[in-house]
Amino acid sequence: MSTVKRDTYTPDSLLSVAVRVFNERGYDGTSMEHLSKAAGISKSSIYHHVRGKEELLRRGISRALDGLFAVLDESGAREGRAVERLEHVTRRTVEVLMAELPYVTLLLRVRGNTDTELWAMARRREFDQRVAELVKQAAAEGDLRADVDARLATRLLFGMINSIAEWYRPDRTSGNGTASGGNTSAEVAEAVVRTAFAGLRTH
Amino acid sequence: MSTVKRDTYTPDSLLSVAVRVFNERGYDGTSMEHLSKAAGISKSSIYHHVRGKEELLRRGISRALDGLFAVLDESGAREGRAVERLEHVTRRTVEVLMAELPYVTLLLRVRGNTDTELWAMARRREFDQRVAELVKQAAAEGDLRADVDARLATRLLFGMINSIAEWYRPDRTSGNGTASGGNTSAEVAEAVVRTAFAGLRTH
Repeated sequence: MSTVKRDTYTPDSLLSVAVRVFNERGYDGTSMEHLSKAAGISKSSIYHHVRGKEELLRRGISRALDGLFAVLDESGAREGRAVERLEHVTRRTVEVLMAELPYVTLLLRVRGNTDTELWAMARRREFDQRVAELVKQAAAEGDLRADVDARLATRLLFGMINSIAEWYRPDRTSGNGTASGGNTSAEVAEAVVRTAFAGLRTH
Repeated sequence: MSTVKRDTYTPDSLLSVAVRVFNERGYDGTSMEHLSKAAGISKSSIYHHVRGKEELLRRGISRALDGLFAVLDESGAREGRAVERLEHVTRRTVEVLMAELPYVTLLLRVRGNTDTELWAMARRREFDQRVAELVKQAAAEGDLRADVDARLATRLLFGMINSIAEWYRPDRTSGNGTASGGNTSAEVAEAVVRTAFAGLRTH
């Protein structure tokens, strides 16, 4: 029997519960009943906040996308040589992924055919495209090796970045940004930048 | 209405159908009914080949694991400096992933709690561990940069490699190893090795 508590949710705290459940059960596998049980409030209380689970999906994904697209507006992403901007975007994308882990995880797992999922996939492609343009520009400026195709380089870069969502778990006991495995998000971001741009091998 | 055809399956061809359905629907979401419809033969015909869907899962995953572990036995993975062996394993792991794409995809998606899934996850960790040992050894020999933690480097390397399963689709029309996007598996493997070890940036 589920314990129904008084609805003291804010839009953000309800969203946080919903996104956790979406990531655990998959969006398709999540019903309003599951959300009601996880939040400990009735379905009608949830409907007081949102029209349904698709609105929660859209809000969760928006939070991830807002964080990611904001990186592209930072001065480090707009000024200087393309390769420097690319490194800035790489570093900050890792940091946003780690800071907004559940929301970015939700975005990365979207696969479906609802309007919201199609919109999310289109926005994600748009972000990838913006980064791919930076890769191309950096290659044209002679700062990236010519023997790795720009499109392939972009895919491998995102492959490395996005894979962090599969193993990184924030350490809830420390609260100082220390990740499982003992790496802070700044350390992980720096490791990605070093690996992708300078390479692991000593020269 | 499903058309039931005469059972002309071999163990390998039935496995190929089952693995495709597992990857499309998820292993948990696949019933013997789904497999029967996809194969176009009756459930009892399937039971003539295997005891059930878990046996098909085990066989599919075994095929991926056999390919991956065989890489570790190649002379290029056993002889020479650790960094050279690591580069060999990286290159060949990418090639096996691309050659055995459905089977490796199945392995990478395993998350569950059946004996077979737990065994698969343990074997996958064992493979990762073997590569992590090579990373550590190469670092100890001074061939890998000291400012990226070996465990993190291993994770980022596999992040890059495994992400290929998300976008690579063999081009069935050419049959010459050309991938979607026009890259052969040798080209993709070389790009991964260059990116991870030498870095994208010109020096």
